[in-house]
Amino acid sequence: MIKNILGIEVPEQIDGLGDVKPYAGVWSNIEDNKVSENVARPVKAKKAHTSKVCDSLKEAIEKSNPHDGMTVTFHHHLRGGDGVLMQTIEILDELGIKDITLASSSLTSAHDGLVPYVEKGMITRIFSSGIRGRLGEIISMGKLKHPAIIHSHGGRVRDILSGRIKPDLSVLAASAADEEGNSTGSFGPSAFGSMGYADIDAKYSKNVIIVTDNMVEYPCIPASVRQNYVDFVVKIDTIGDAAKIASGTTRITKSPMDLRIAKIASTVIEHSGLFKNGMSFQVGAGGASLAVAKFLREDMKRKDIKGSFMIGGVTSYGVDMLEEGLFQAIFDVQSFDAAVSTSVLNNPKHVEITCDHYANPNNCGAMTNKLDVVVLGALEVDVDFNVNVITGSSGEIRGASGGHSDTAAGANLTVVVCPSFRGRLPIITEKVHTVVTPGESVDVVVTERGVCVNPSKPNLKAALIKAGVNVVEIDDLRKEVEKITGTPAPKQLGNKPVGYVEYRDGSILDVIYNVENLS
Amino acid sequence: MIKNILGIEVPEQIDGLGDVKPYAGVWSNIEDNKVSENVARPVKAKKAHTSKVCDSLKEAIEKSNPHDGMTVTFHHHLRGGDGVLMQTIEILDELGIKDITLASSSLTSAHDGLVPYVEKGMITRIFSSGIRGRLGEIISMGKLKHPAIIHSHGGRVRDILSGRIKPDLSVLAASAADEEGNSTGSFGPSAFGSMGYADIDAKYSKNVIIVTDNMVEYPCIPASVRQNYVDFVVKIDTIGDAAKIASGTTRITKSPMDLRIAKIASTVIEHSGLFKNGMSFQVGAGGASLAVAKFLREDMKRKDIKGSFMIGGVTSYGVDMLEEGLFQAIFDVQSFDAAVSTSVLNNPKHVEITCDHYANPNNCGAMTNKLDVVVLGALEVDVDFNVNVITGSSGEIRGASGGHSDTAAGANLTVVVCPSFRGRLPIITEKVHTVVTPGESVDVVVTERGVCVNPSKPNLKAALIKAGVNVVEIDDLRKEVEKITGTPAPKQLGNKPVGYVEYRDGSILDVIYNVENLS
Repeated sequence: MIKNILGIEVPEQIDGLGDVKPYAGVWSNIEDNKVSENVARPVKAKKAHTSKVCDSLKEAIEKSNPHDGMTVTFHHHLRGGDGVLMQTIEILDELGIKDITLASSSLTSAHDGLVPYVEKGMITRIFSSGIRGRLGEIISMGKLKHPAIIHSHGGRVRDILSGRIKPDLSVLAASAADEEGNSTGSFGPSAFGSMGYADIDAKYSKNVIIVTDNMVEYPCIPASVRQNYVDFVVKIDTIGDAAKIASGTTRITKSPMDLRIAKIASTVIEHSGLFKNGMSFQVGAGGASLAVAKFLREDMKRKDIKGSFMIGGVTSYGVDMLEEGLFQAIFDVQSFDAAVSTSVLNNPKHVEITCDHYANPNNCGAMTNKLDVVVLGALEVDVDFNVNVITGSSGEIRGASGGHSDTAAGANLTVVVCPSFRGRLPIITEKVHTVVTPGESVDVVVTERGVCVNPSKPNLKAALIKAGVNVVEIDDLRKEVEKITGTPAPKQLGNKPVGYVEYRDGSILDVIYNVENLS
Repeated sequence: MIKNILGIEVPEQIDGLGDVKPYAGVWSNIEDNKVSENVARPVKAKKAHTSKVCDSLKEAIEKSNPHDGMTVTFHHHLRGGDGVLMQTIEILDELGIKDITLASSSLTSAHDGLVPYVEKGMITRIFSSGIRGRLGEIISMGKLKHPAIIHSHGGRVRDILSGRIKPDLSVLAASAADEEGNSTGSFGPSAFGSMGYADIDAKYSKNVIIVTDNMVEYPCIPASVRQNYVDFVVKIDTIGDAAKIASGTTRITKSPMDLRIAKIASTVIEHSGLFKNGMSFQVGAGGASLAVAKFLREDMKRKDIKGSFMIGGVTSYGVDMLEEGLFQAIFDVQSFDAAVSTSVLNNPKHVEITCDHYANPNNCGAMTNKLDVVVLGALEVDVDFNVNVITGSSGEIRGASGGHSDTAAGANLTVVVCPSFRGRLPIITEKVHTVVTPGESVDVVVTERGVCVNPSKPNLKAALIKAGVNVVEIDDLRKEVEKITGTPAPKQLGNKPVGYVEYRDGSILDVIYNVENLS
């Protein structure tokens, strides 16, 4: 073990993955024009005029060289409605495959069914940007053989390019596909919008299976994944639950607390110096974060500001702003509801992008690196501005890294919105249980009790004070909160690592230890 | 030297490129799901919020680590109007860079200016799918230090993926681009349509410069090359001569001979068993080849046939057929005139594709592998159906391999159209001077004096005879032609290799020797 720059003890090696570096700062591994060490794409041949279509997912998997120790990957565009990952794992189990590394771009409530496969050791390693529910609990209890690796969205692309994740089989859901595997998420009964996370799997996996419940006549237009990356195509009855695919996370909150925080955040943005023509913007999909968009929209109209682009994580709220002309374009790596799919399909200014294009820290044009303002949520924030979005109050894994650290690093202004406490739980705290986004990349924390500005941004602090924003020192806020909540009881943790938080550049930020008593 | 399967002596090693394999048959190196040995992409980092824009092409080149022995690459979408390749070579010469490998996807009449740079040894090696004009002549006379490598369009992608071509600097012209390098050929004063050939350079080159004469506000939509592949962006006065970019090769011929051959070819297609709903089709852009489209269009309307897709090499004639509903889609790797650019830009069914997607022999979904019918031209065809499209009557380099061998290999029906002789020159001959497309992949040769069917296709031969087509044995046709033209004087050749014809799979098909007396 070695201490990283945050003073956290992290491993220098991970069993089966070899050497890893301790986190050394947001930009410490990024140099202009530096070529990163990457693996070659497994470009696969196929003779002319042979069919890729299989009668069943099982047949396609059997043709894809399933073997013990393999890495199986998925995208999570179907979110809570996903029906493809579990079907695949069940088939691999039927085939007696063991010691599987599961590398889905994220894991959701649709994947609680993984629990028995982890418990019996069929799945022994997990890479993901998020782990929730019962699966998060059993991993936190030490039931997964190797510690889970939590990466960011951009970090996952880097993991695959660098060979840390080596996909043997990728089963990629599409809401429409043709016989050659040209496929999209933008139309069909199970439409889910952008296929941005699937691109890197399609390009770098040894075996790519497209599954769809909507086989269309050749050629499928538009096609996000093109036929030259696809080995097999399968029509199945359903790729998932369409109602849950188009999730309801995108409605503006009615919570007075969230709305109050969002209103303050919009004031912060307005006086940041970045609120002007040509600004670019990203908000998260939930709670106070999305509510900021509502106030920003009003502010933009009032001041006649025309932005350049939005990225995300796109909600129908964002689509409305595009259609109103408030922004020139949306770059969409992930679409959050059905209305967004229609926009991806029909509006040329709604541009689907790959996750490489969105957030890969090692490329020369990630969208996150061109971002002006991002608004992000938090489970905890500490006095060094470090943010936890992965572990809960007992120290259990229950959240998602997602694009949090990617956008925070790239944006000119990173705003974290959160209440200062929830119930008896302080959110502004001495030290976050798990660092996902380093404080170095967080500029402002907006709470209902005041706004904290990172000491690295004195000019911003002065501007906000001048604008009448209630700026407070974060340690003062912490003390105030602690008076209300009291000091929480210490978490009951063991000393077995159950998860590693990988920073977007591949270095190790933090270690998650097993929880002995899950409350 | 070793004899390949055609009995042609070819090298087993090429100086500076290492081992090469002798050609062993059209599909001898292709196995389903076989992973080819490829190099990794040089993924380059860049810090957030830094500009890629340079004041001049020279500045961009100076920032791109120019050095002796480097490989410089270009696309040829500007065809005879290209103004970018020569500007780049002139700057590199100014900077004193020597021993350059030039790897343009093709070379045209716009590149005669390369002659002095080859003669003085500044450019020492050339990879290209085509070489014409004065440049072809001096290479044929032995003035290029290393033999030129003639590859196919698909073979070029394979050459780059496999590391045979290692691009150090790619200067890629766009008719519109933004400050991050998002770029397109589909609009702007110098619009040239698809950027299909540029994709592999953008992805695999160590330094990518986008040059445009039409810098647009961020973001450029649509974008064929995306910002995550681009290092520098430069606005220059002109990328070339727009009139020559939109070349005139796409008008239907008025030559009675070509029209007669085309009419026969369309009859061959009609009775091939492939002329039915769902057929797919490619024709070349010139002469008899394009004229086949005219007759096919009439035949399709007459018989109410609806095709699936066209690929190419797209002419405005193809666009008309798409708009008439004769085909469902066009897949466009290269657009031949200004009207095509408008269609690429506006018609969702006119799909721009990369050259990897078009013709890479090593991938699992090349469009050429799904093609039903292709119609191709020829400079010479021999009695084994081998086709020469690269060397002229004196043995000099004067043509282009292009997609000839790629489409011939993939199509269910490969039709070569040519007159049986031109002036005193037999076209149907005992042995072609240079094999570019192996006879194994050619099904039918259509001339004004009869149609020759490859003996490997007896059923096709029977069907054509039944349909009343004038089917003749190719050796009989050769004899008949020779009676008319006489036996041509032997070519005056030296024994210095000046070019190697690489088959699409990377094996060596033929050697071009120096010409001692250029007539």
